Amino acid sequence: MLTGKRIAFVGGDARILEVIRYAIDLDASVVLIGFDRLAMDGAGAEKAELSPDVLSDIDALVLPVAGLDEDGYADSNYSAARIRFTDEHFASLPGRCTVFTGISGPYLEQMCRRRGLALVKLFDLDEVAILNSIPTAEGAVQMAMENTEITIHGSQSVVLGFGRCGMTLARTLAALGSRVKVGARKAADLARVYEMGLTGFPLEEVAARVADADLIFNTVPAPVLTAEVLARVPRECVIIDIASKPGGTDFRYAQRRGIRALLAPSLPGIVAPKTAGRILARTLCRHLRETG
Amino acid sequence: MLTGKRIAFVGGDARILEVIRYAIDLDASVVLIGFDRLAMDGAGAEKAELSPDVLSDIDALVLPVAGLDEDGYADSNYSAARIRFTDEHFASLPGRCTVFTGISGPYLEQMCRRRGLALVKLFDLDEVAILNSIPTAEGAVQMAMENTEITIHGSQSVVLGFGRCGMTLARTLAALGSRVKVGARKAADLARVYEMGLTGFPLEEVAARVADADLIFNTVPAPVLTAEVLARVPRECVIIDIASKPGGTDFRYAQRRGIRALLAPSLPGIVAPKTAGRILARTLCRHLRETG
Repeated sequence: MLTGKRIAFVGGDARILEVIRYAIDLDASVVLIGFDRLAMDGAGAEKAELSPDVLSDIDALVLPVAGLDEDGYADSNYSAARIRFTDEHFASLPGRCTVFTGISGPYLEQMCRRRGLALVKLFDLDEVAILNSIPTAEGAVQMAMENTEITIHGSQSVVLGFGRCGMTLARTLAALGSRVKVGARKAADLARVYEMGLTGFPLEEVAARVADADLIFNTVPAPVLTAEVLARVPRECVIIDIASKPGGTDFRYAQRRGIRALLAPSLPGIVAPKTAGRILARTLCRHLRETG
Repeated sequence: MLTGKRIAFVGGDARILEVIRYAIDLDASVVLIGFDRLAMDGAGAEKAELSPDVLSDIDALVLPVAGLDEDGYADSNYSAARIRFTDEHFASLPGRCTVFTGISGPYLEQMCRRRGLALVKLFDLDEVAILNSIPTAEGAVQMAMENTEITIHGSQSVVLGFGRCGMTLARTLAALGSRVKVGARKAADLARVYEMGLTGFPLEEVAARVADADLIFNTVPAPVLTAEVLARVPRECVIIDIASKPGGTDFRYAQRRGIRALLAPSLPGIVAPKTAGRILARTLCRHLRETG
């Protein structure tokens, strides 16, 4: 339980609503800033304007998943006005307060450092990254379903990279009946691929392994699907690149060759905001309980 | 191989293109009627106008998946003109000719009976129905992904009916990490559900089993999700009804209660026309080979 803990939420999207619900369920005292458009049913939370006063006795400050921009602004889907977080606001936070965000930039980092505040970047935690790989993999599969005229079942798929997303994606595709090949660099990863009953190959051999692919999923944030590799990819193949921008695909060459190649946006918040929100909620609230 | 066999195709959609490709690969002699808009690359097929002459020496007549309408018309996605099949055309077919369609109506049945022609309704074959359950299940899962804010993984799903589609759907959902309950009537089906590691319940208990459902998939072509049952379904639950029209859901009541309930169209030809076409192609060509 979070009885006696006071948490301020400042803006955000559908994922943050899940965190708010979860915190209320755990009996936290919740202050909502930048949620004037949100219809609240039931008790457990109060709305407030941003001010140094309202921040002076909180145990946790929960920012939007994207954090603050370079001018200190927090986006909110539930307010017409943008909320600006200045040094004065950070100065008013008590020393015990933990600041939570998904990702961070220089402005937020600098403010927290200056005021000696603990900053938790949830997306940097291995736990969150692994759990987020579930909606990421489902979102990638959904994109594949929407962009092909074949079933995943019976298809030949290639997964490049075997990190947290690569492993989840390979398992999900295999479970759906796809024949899955996985390209990875580390011998230990190829051993795990083998243990899972899938076919592994050294990533540097990718050009020789794509000739029969119906679907290629790239998770490697480096140029992997180069023009040289794409020249061996069948034209009907669909490429879903889930590596962070700009992806690992030569999209210009893919288009020129007539191959459909899509750079996936950050999928969890889009395809399953509720699940993505619950992941953040559980980790955040556990963190608050444990840091006492 | 189908060397020496002459097959006439009359209209159809993307699925029929797969059948044509497959027949050409097997060395059949192929005549295309109602495909004037189709760009043909490579040899192996000739285009023709519909006439008694062109039909007089064929071994198989392949109609669109939907068959002929009550006036004898065949739809074609690859021709502006509609093609009308009259008694004169059926009279010109040699006695050895087999007529293939997906489904049939009284007109087509009557014509074939009158002329003593073998009529194969591919969708009536158990083999085709089981293979078609794969794109059907994937399409239903895709609809669920597109209409929820949660992942299939970790969700509580309920599958009603354990026929060909019900079994494939239950297996697919479980493989994705959903907790699956299956409602079925027959004791043998519930035994199979148990063997698959899933939770079964007698279909008549459905009202007592839906209170925790995130997703309900109905495959039973009878009123199963009645108002009485829907009153126990959580409002956030999404219902995908894949039973043939009008489905087994009281859609009026679902809407009134604010539950999202969707009647799925015939999914294979929409979500995976290529896979659906290959299913028809393999069965049709095997049939032709075996009947000599």
